[in-house]
This record gives sequence, C-alpha cells and structure tokens, in this order.
Amino acid sequence: MQDAVQGSTPSPYAYPLLIKQLLHTPFVQAPDQEIVYRGQLRMTYATLRERIARLANGLHQLGVRHGSTVAVMDWDSHRYLESYFAVPMMGAVLQTVNVRLSEAEIAYTINHAGAEVLFVHTDFLPVVESIKDQLETVRTFVWIDEPGSEACAHTIAFTTEYEAMLEASATSYDFPDFDENTRATTFYTTGTTGLPKGVYFSHRQLVLHTITLMAALSSPVSGQRFHRGDVYMPLTPMFHVHAWGMPYIATVLGVKQVYPGRYVPDRLVQLIREEGVTFSHCVSTILHMLLSCDNAKHADFSKWKVIIGGGALPHGLARAALDRGIDIFTGYGMSETCPVLSLAQLPPHIEPLDLEEEVRLRCKTGFPVPLVDVRIVNENMEDIAHDGRAYGEIVVRSPWLTQGYLNNPDASAQLWTGGYLHTQDIANIDATGNIQITDRIKDVIKSGGEWISSLEIESLISLHPDVSEVAVIGIKDEKWGERPVALVVLKAGAVVTEDEVKAHVMAFSKTGRISKYAVPQIVKFVDALEKTSVGKMNKKWLREQFA
Amino acid sequence: MQDAVQGSTPSPYAYPLLIKQLLHTPFVQAPDQEIVYRGQLRMTYATLRERIARLANGLHQLGVRHGSTVAVMDWDSHRYLESYFAVPMMGAVLQTVNVRLSEAEIAYTINHAGAEVLFVHTDFLPVVESIKDQLETVRTFVWIDEPGSEACAHTIAFTTEYEAMLEASATSYDFPDFDENTRATTFYTTGTTGLPKGVYFSHRQLVLHTITLMAALSSPVSGQRFHRGDVYMPLTPMFHVHAWGMPYIATVLGVKQVYPGRYVPDRLVQLIREEGVTFSHCVSTILHMLLSCDNAKHADFSKWKVIIGGGALPHGLARAALDRGIDIFTGYGMSETCPVLSLAQLPPHIEPLDLEEEVRLRCKTGFPVPLVDVRIVNENMEDIAHDGRAYGEIVVRSPWLTQGYLNNPDASAQLWTGGYLHTQDIANIDATGNIQITDRIKDVIKSGGEWISSLEIESLISLHPDVSEVAVIGIKDEKWGERPVALVVLKAGAVVTEDEVKAHVMAFSKTGRISKYAVPQIVKFVDALEKTSVGKMNKKWLREQFA
Repeated sequence: MQDAVQGSTPSPYAYPLLIKQLLHTPFVQAPDQEIVYRGQLRMTYATLRERIARLANGLHQLGVRHGSTVAVMDWDSHRYLESYFAVPMMGAVLQTVNVRLSEAEIAYTINHAGAEVLFVHTDFLPVVESIKDQLETVRTFVWIDEPGSEACAHTIAFTTEYEAMLEASATSYDFPDFDENTRATTFYTTGTTGLPKGVYFSHRQLVLHTITLMAALSSPVSGQRFHRGDVYMPLTPMFHVHAWGMPYIATVLGVKQVYPGRYVPDRLVQLIREEGVTFSHCVSTILHMLLSCDNAKHADFSKWKVIIGGGALPHGLARAALDRGIDIFTGYGMSETCPVLSLAQLPPHIEPLDLEEEVRLRCKTGFPVPLVDVRIVNENMEDIAHDGRAYGEIVVRSPWLTQGYLNNPDASAQLWTGGYLHTQDIANIDATGNIQITDRIKDVIKSGGEWISSLEIESLISLHPDVSEVAVIGIKDEKWGERPVALVVLKAGAVVTEDEVKAHVMAFSKTGRISKYAVPQIVKFVDALEKTSVGKMNKKWLREQFA
Repeated sequence: MQDAVQGSTPSPYAYPLLIKQLLHTPFVQAPDQEIVYRGQLRMTYATLRERIARLANGLHQLGVRHGSTVAVMDWDSHRYLESYFAVPMMGAVLQTVNVRLSEAEIAYTINHAGAEVLFVHTDFLPVVESIKDQLETVRTFVWIDEPGSEACAHTIAFTTEYEAMLEASATSYDFPDFDENTRATTFYTTGTTGLPKGVYFSHRQLVLHTITLMAALSSPVSGQRFHRGDVYMPLTPMFHVHAWGMPYIATVLGVKQVYPGRYVPDRLVQLIREEGVTFSHCVSTILHMLLSCDNAKHADFSKWKVIIGGGALPHGLARAALDRGIDIFTGYGMSETCPVLSLAQLPPHIEPLDLEEEVRLRCKTGFPVPLVDVRIVNENMEDIAHDGRAYGEIVVRSPWLTQGYLNNPDASAQLWTGGYLHTQDIANIDATGNIQITDRIKDVIKSGGEWISSLEIESLISLHPDVSEVAVIGIKDEKWGERPVALVVLKAGAVVTEDEVKAHVMAFSKTGRISKYAVPQIVKFVDALEKTSVGKMNKKWLREQFA
C-alpha cells in the first residue's frame, strides 16, 4: 500500500508537504496534553496518535484506498479531529458534510463527491434514513453511537460502529508518502443560490495554510497570539472549511483542545469556564447568542480570545465583547480560500488607543497574512488607490485557494477570471495596507448613483444600546434605484421607535462618516433574522421577504 | 525574459513558493519602515522595493540570466539584503562568499560555484587583486565603493560600481514565475578538514524555512517572539547561511532592520542603543566579545532578545546575559540545514523558575520547529530512549535541508545515509521532547570506556566567576584512551590556579551531575582561543596545538 513519491521534486531526499508532517513535533512534545469532548471524555495526544492509526486501519479494512472519499456527519468532536488526520494521511479524501443543509442537498453533496464511506452520528439517523435510497456511491455506513443519544428506528445497514471499529484495529499504521498535490478534503459551499458547490484542498495547501496562519497569528496583539499556552475550542463547525483550519494549528502547537459537540450556548459558556478555554473563533451571530445566554451573565470571559469571521464584526458587538474582557478581532476569508486571507491587527507599538479607534481597528478586515497576494481592483482588473475611500473587488492569489469548484468548470472559470480568485467582496484599502470590506457585491445598495455599504450601516445601528441584531438590505425604489431598509431585533424589553433609530444613524451622517443617503428609509422591528446554515445573515431570503 | 511556469502543479492557478511571494505583504503594509546601515544611511521599504528592481535590471544589463550565479563579497549591509531578494527572484543563484576564508579558499569557492558576476566591497580589493587571475568563471566585476573606505591600488577591471549601476537602472522589474525547486542560494561550509563544501537551497526551501521559523518564534517565551514591533540587527554574518534566514523573516514582518557593516564590538553596542535594536542572533563568542567591550559597561540591554547558535550556549554566558537583562536562548542548526532545526523554550505556563533551571532550559538545544522530523539514533538508525540520558546522533528530515554538497556526490551520500541528513551531533532527548546536544561526534572525549561531553565541561567551567572563555578537548592518554584538557582564558586581572578550576568542576561531580572522569586532567591558562572563520572554537586546531 506504500504509494510511490510522485511529487515535484525528483530527489530521493524530497520532503512532500503532507498532513502527516504536521505531526512530527506535537506527539513528541505534548504526549500527555488533553483533548476534551463535551467535558465528558478526556484523552491524551498519545491516545490521539493511536486512534488516528486505528481509524486508518479500520478504514483500510473497509476498503478505503488512495483516492477514496470518506464522508462524515458528526458534531464537533475528537472523532472529527481524528478524521482530519487519518483520512487524508491514508491518501483518501475527507468530505465534511454540512449537516445543516436540507436532506436533498446533503444527498446531492455526498453523491457529487462520490463518497464511498459515510460516518453517521446518532443525531443524523433520521436524515440518512430518509435519503439512503438516493445515495449512489456510498457502499459502507459507519454508525457513530454517541453515549446518551437515543437512536431512532431506522433501516440503515451499518457495517460497523466507530468505536467498535477503532477497538478492533491496530494502533500503528505506516502512512505513505505521495504527491503533496493529492486532494485531502472537500466540502460544499452554502451559497444562497443554486446547488451547493464543492471546493477542495490538497495536502500542500493545508500544510501551507496551517504554518502560515500560525506565523500570522504571532503578531503583536495579545489576542492574536495562538500559542502553546492556550486552550482551544472551535465555535465554527468542523464541517465548514475545516473549522478555519484551526484544529490543525492547535494540534501542531500541542495545546489542550476542547470539542463541544452540538452548539448549545449555555453549555458552551460552561465549557469555556470549566475547561479554561482561551482561544476560539466564530461568526458574529454565534458570539451574540453566546453572550446573550443565561450562563453568560456571570461568566468571566477575560482570558478569552475570539476571532470573528464569516462576515463583518459589528462595532456594537465588538464593544460589548470588549466590555466583557474578550480580546476580539476580525479574520477574513471564505470557503474557497481555505479560509484565512487576512487578520485585523492593532499597531505594533501599543499606545493608548481611544476605545472607538480600537473598536474600529479590531473590526477591520485587516492585513493579509504572509504569502497572500491581495489586490483590490476595478472592473478592468486595475488596482484602486490606497486611500481608504476608493472601492473595488478583492481578488487574491495564495498557496491555499481552491483551484475551482469540483466538477463545475463554468463556475470555476468565473471564480478565477484573470488569474485571480474573485471574492465578490467590495472593499477599500488605506495607505497602511489595512483593508475594509464594505459589502458583498450582491448586497451593496445602489442608491441615487451612490454605493451604500450595508455592512457599515449595520455596524452603526449595532452601536445603539437597545439593538440586539440588525440587517440592512436594499429594496427597489423608482426614484433612487434602491433604498436601504434596516431590519432590527431589539434587546428583550427595549422600546425604541423607528425615528429614534433613524436619528441614531443620522448623527453619523452629520459627522461625515456616512452620507445622508445611507440613513435607512424604513426601520422595521422583527423578532429574529434568518440565518444561513453556517450562521450568517441570509440577506437573499430577507430581501425576498421584505421586497 | 518571462520564464514559463515549470513547477509541480499543472494547474494554471499554481502558486509556486518563490522568494518574491514573501514580499506581497511588507511593501504594502510597511512602505515607510526604516532600513538602517551603520547608523549612517537610512532608507525605507519603499526604497528597498525600488532598489531590488534596480539591482535586477542592472544585473540583467550585465547579462545575468536564469541560472547565472552572482557572488557577493560584502559586510552586512542593505546591499546584501537587496541581493538576497533581487538575485534569486530573477532566477539566478546568489553565492554569499565567506570573506573570512583564506584567499585560496575564496578563489576555490567562486570557481566551484561558477560565479559569473562578483561584487567586491572596497575592503576586499586586496584579496580580489591577489586572486583575480585564478578566477575562472567571473566575467564581470562590480565594485562596492563604500563611502569612507579608501580603495587600495589595484588592477581589477570593474565594469561598474554598485550605486552607479542602481542609479542607471529602472525602478521596476517583472520578476518571472518559475519552478519553486530552482536553486536560489549557495555558500560554502567552513569545515576544519578538507576543501570547503558548497550547500544550496531552493526558493521553496527558503520560503518554507522563513514561514515555519516565523511560526516557531511565536511560542510563549517573551524572547522567542520576533514580531512586528521588533528592531532587527543580525550578528551572524550575512555570508553565512543567509544570516540564519532572519533577514527574510524581518522583511516579511516589515520590521525596522539595522545592518552593522563590519563587526566592531563597541560600534555594535552603540547601534543597539541608538537604533533601539531588540532582536539579534549570534554565536556565543560574538556575544562574549560584545559584553566585554567598553561601550557594554553602561549599556542597557534589557530590551534585547538574542538567539545563540552555531554551537553551545555556555551556562556562564547565559547567566551573564540574563544578569544584563538580555532575553537569551539557544537555536540549533547548521549550514546544511538552512539552518534552524530547533529552539530552546521555557514551559508555556510561566511559573517562577529558579535561575539555575531557567539557565538550563535556555541553554538546551530545545524543541524542533514544526515540520522538522528529528530522530536521535544509534549506529543502526534505531531511536534511542527518550530518557534524557541515552545518547545518539541527531538525524533529520525537513523541507529545507540541502540535498547534498554541490558537485560532490561522495560527501552528499555520506551526509544523507539512510534517508536522513546526519548532523554528526551527539545528543540526548528527555520525555518532554527537549533535546540536549552533548558534543560533536569528533569532539567527544572517550575516556576509560566513557563518553565525556566536552560541551558540558565547558559549560560548567564557564560558571566560574573568573573565567572568560574555555575550550575542553581530549588528548591521547595511554591508560584512558583520552583525557580531558581545559584551555581557559581568564577575565582581565583574575588570578586562579589550576587546582581551583579542577575543584570547581569536581564539585559538580560530587552532586552527580558529571562523572569524576570528566574533571579535566590538565587546566591550561591561555591568552585567547583559536576560532574558525565564523567565530566558533576551532577545536581541531586546538587539539593539534596541545596534543
């Protein structure tokens, strides 16, 4: 089973960038470090090493070979971490199934990826039961029998159960060398239009993303250092862009890792406290939920560093987090980019910043991480001025971008127009190279010949003390083309009028921060805002509802 | 002149790991940051960018093409930094000439590397004048006319002068893409036996070394962080292993960089003070010289972080440095390894360590940086026990090791026996993965069937308050095979007897730290110790002298 080295370097001393190479240091240096699942199961890195080998042996027994695809439906767990390593290290491809998609979409993605083996956590038995006859490529089902979860009645023919498979397998596996450009992972983007599209990353890409992001996180903002003394817990699901690649970094660093299972805000806060979590990452809506839950009221968050990504970090949320002692800042990227492209940073020489300036800097899209070639361009691919005002689309090159969408040449060609990956994010860049996204291309509001940034207006409204959440969308207007409408969720018990919200925004237009066109024409109070399967505002849905 | 992409990845979206990719971020983020030469010349990163392009255009005019070799004889300077980028980014090879070698050796290395262009600083006119008729491949000589240096009479036919060439050249250059495995640099090791041997590194190797070392330096010892707020000055010459690759890291970070020209201890201390230098690296003998110079007496070193490499960091020197407020620690590597393999680290949870334990940890060879596969093996390539006592040779694999010696297949094969690079360093490793080199294979003292670590005895003697420097070597002994002899340089004015030094070492044997066989049989007081061209103890020479 030892594949030949096919890589680029013809020398017998070639060192391919394979995921297994990330493991040279942590297993030697941190064999006794802990990995915790839901506060209930604890194991060491030494055990992780064994279980990775057991998983590979188990999968080999099931017929998994170089190029096979193994799909996983699980919550965030130590098992997922094991799959992150064992499956690609065998030369197989790991498909991380987005369990928040519809049943039809889940079936579509598993078929499209050609998965041969499917891991199914007990909680997803109903979904798999209902789609199992549509699955065209899966020939082996492996049950993940979660202690405490009750299995529903089903007719899925499981070949084995995850723990039983590991129990029966040998504790060492000779992971082979092969071409570093071998596909390691695939997962599907959750666009709001059309079918999910598969993106995919190679061993080389994941290794380079891991090491370069480690380097980038060492910049001189206390909160941006992810280091050997941290305790890590992801709060973006492991099925989504490898939880931003952070579990790979956490493992290389040899830190204590905490996997929370299904996200239940009160339980997450409890884990942060009980396990001493110091480093996490999430979308802003998850942080908002978490800070609003009962357990959060008396929790101490003062040692917690959080990167917010997957969308803008509203100034109001940033300020609320800073008030709770959270070291919060923005990371930017997308599914197609592995994902991280940039990080917000404070100036290297820490001078006393006023709070407003600090909030502004922490919420910025930030500075590209090393090796990332970011350009902000107009429609002719010409660079815009670095004046903090001109805007254009962010296009990028880096060693870790999906080379296209799986089996979708049209969408791939569109993604990669002109030799750069097009993010569809509109941004400006200032003279210091600090980037600020102002909108998604499709969310930008075009009013009276001006482009209004929905994100900026949301951020300003979020600063109102009674506002819990807000989305700003454009609705058609005969005279202006489009006009901004704000959909606002108020904090429990708060009473605010539409005019008060408008006056709050208008105040910023008087200081010149925004134009008066940007003041929402309508402010509508709603009970909740529709989110996508990964917790982002579903603006397409909102636009349709409020058209 | 645009070379085609030949790299490993066939995709049009390939992103080869080329040195030019390191420059995407700093020139955007730090255009106004300073680069200082000898405290006299100051320029910005924006100027550096221009000068790199000018240098490439100038070299192109001189006929330098993909695969050409450009050799440099200069002190540490902004010009060297420019060469680090411009030459390989054109697809040419940079030869960093070791100017401390003998004239014959310098001629040999330039011929062996096949250099076509040779840069000559005014200070090296006498050397080049005397070897110019031996140079077989150089067809273009470029003079580096240092302001303030007086040129001797010579008959070298210079085509141009460095600054004049840059002045006459255009400020932009379209650096091409090419195979990331293209050779970028070459230089010659300064072994104490035989002819110098050439090692060489590719673009891919230098990029991976840069990024991974950046990541490794972010571990939670204050001193090990090399970050955007630092001010960098090298104290290992730029002709030697790219000054440990640190100028590449400094540039990616966008920090202020200070290049000192020729090393004059009092002037170095002055630069540290005047330019606010916070991060350097050197061999221990250089630090020793620096702390002993006049200017050091009243200097404030409390913000200075120093990595010591190229040999052991003696405990006495570490303690003296800590007393002066210097954040000192060990880095390990060699010319063949690009160079960094490991870094000393303190435990992540900083607890009050007693001074002795802290010194011990800072002086250890330390923990491998990510991606480095370090093994410590016996003669059969079997791993030794991780008990801190068993010893073996360090053998390594990593993505940045020379694939052999240039045009020297025999030495290359010996270097790479069994698929691992053999360091010839003898070490132990403890249960936490912390490595301690005890000797070079050839310096180990074999006495009465026991192996005595010359480095350990040196370290213990260095703790004596009257000892300035020490070397321990083995001399032949009929009864014991070899016996240790200590060559000691005392501090100015100190009076110590041979018996007092022996008693000092004997005290450690009584606590069980060393065996009594390790107490030197002879302690000889000398005025100075012979160093190699890169400032290491020349033990071969010392053994011959004191045989």
